Amino acid sequence: MLKFYYAPNTCALATHIALIDAGAPYETVRLSFKDQDQRKPGYLAVNPKGRVPSLVTENGVLTETPALLVYIAQRFPRANLAPLDDPFALAQVQAFNNYLCSTVHVTHAHKMRGTRWVDPEDTAALDAMKRKIPVSMLQVFELIENDMLKGPWVMGEQYTICDPYLFTIAGWLEGDKVDMAKLPRVSAHFARMAERANVKRAIAEQTSEPALA
Amino acid sequence: MLKFYYAPNTCALATHIALIDAGAPYETVRLSFKDQDQRKPGYLAVNPKGRVPSLVTENGVLTETPALLVYIAQRFPRANLAPLDDPFALAQVQAFNNYLCSTVHVTHAHKMRGTRWVDPEDTAALDAMKRKIPVSMLQVFELIENDMLKGPWVMGEQYTICDPYLFTIAGWLEGDKVDMAKLPRVSAHFARMAERANVKRAIAEQTSEPALA
Repeated sequence: MLKFYYAPNTCALATHIALIDAGAPYETVRLSFKDQDQRKPGYLAVNPKGRVPSLVTENGVLTETPALLVYIAQRFPRANLAPLDDPFALAQVQAFNNYLCSTVHVTHAHKMRGTRWVDPEDTAALDAMKRKIPVSMLQVFELIENDMLKGPWVMGEQYTICDPYLFTIAGWLEGDKVDMAKLPRVSAHFARMAERANVKRAIAEQTSEPALA
Repeated sequence: MLKFYYAPNTCALATHIALIDAGAPYETVRLSFKDQDQRKPGYLAVNPKGRVPSLVTENGVLTETPALLVYIAQRFPRANLAPLDDPFALAQVQAFNNYLCSTVHVTHAHKMRGTRWVDPEDTAALDAMKRKIPVSMLQVFELIENDMLKGPWVMGEQYTICDPYLFTIAGWLEGDKVDMAKLPRVSAHFARMAERANVKRAIAEQTSEPALA
């Protein structure tokens, strides 16, 4: 049984959906970022980074969304969630997910996590970062819209581990005040994903579960 | 024959070393960031992100360092650069490399690439980002020093695709004014890597080659 630590409204949703897609046996532990659960000693013993997601396996703890997504695809190959035996196709999947983690997620993080990169007292610099979010998020998503998203799924006809990850991060665009009219293909992908039973189930599980005591 | 686009003093060095480690047949194209080669139409046709590295394969172009590193390991399995058939061990390798790309490299990027996240005219905010580099880089490296680097190589006894990537980014610490006395294990790993013939060869190739005309 895998043990999955997440917090609602975070990138952990991608891994949650993939666990369901894979038919993996898992149980969930919900952290509350509002209560700073991710900074408490109990959780830091699981993941010293103090972030989500974390996946506790029979062999130990794993972190980082792109790593978890390939792990799930490889552990549960019958679900056919990634082209594991085709180096080029797998690298395309990985390049997409790496763009999400290192460019897109990081851009979004400048709204709420600016103290990682400037002095926490420097409210002018923190505000400068927040102000750019609608522009900078549109900019990094335009590359997905125009060059990366093949359609109907990210990699084309085959649904892969890229899809729950894109869905998860695209779900932040409205709150980031991005003009969605400029991203019609990303919007259509988001709507397509939102209709899937596994996506609905992951969201329902995250909404109904009480936070870690 | 693989075609490898890089610029000196960038994260592309990691992939360059891995190509040599793998015994891969490759040719190199050097871009000059000073001349903004990465923004010229010829290169944007290769990689619309306008970044390095890019690897042109028989099947098409690949980008993003963690994706390229696994691709090289999978294309040239005899070099034994990653535990490809062990989902947990591979996920550990990937989690390490994802931490480098999404947390460590991004932290460093706030020194020179701050205009990605604030208005380019806002010199006060750009300076605020630059000022934090020695502290923020030490902070993200302390996790590697204390929790992630097993030694002698990143994953323990076995050299993997994590090692050239850590070496590459650790090479920025001195310029980032990080107090290296606080990172003795990272420093020892850096020195161990610098002695390897393949590392010396990659650096020599990047130093001697003329930039793209």
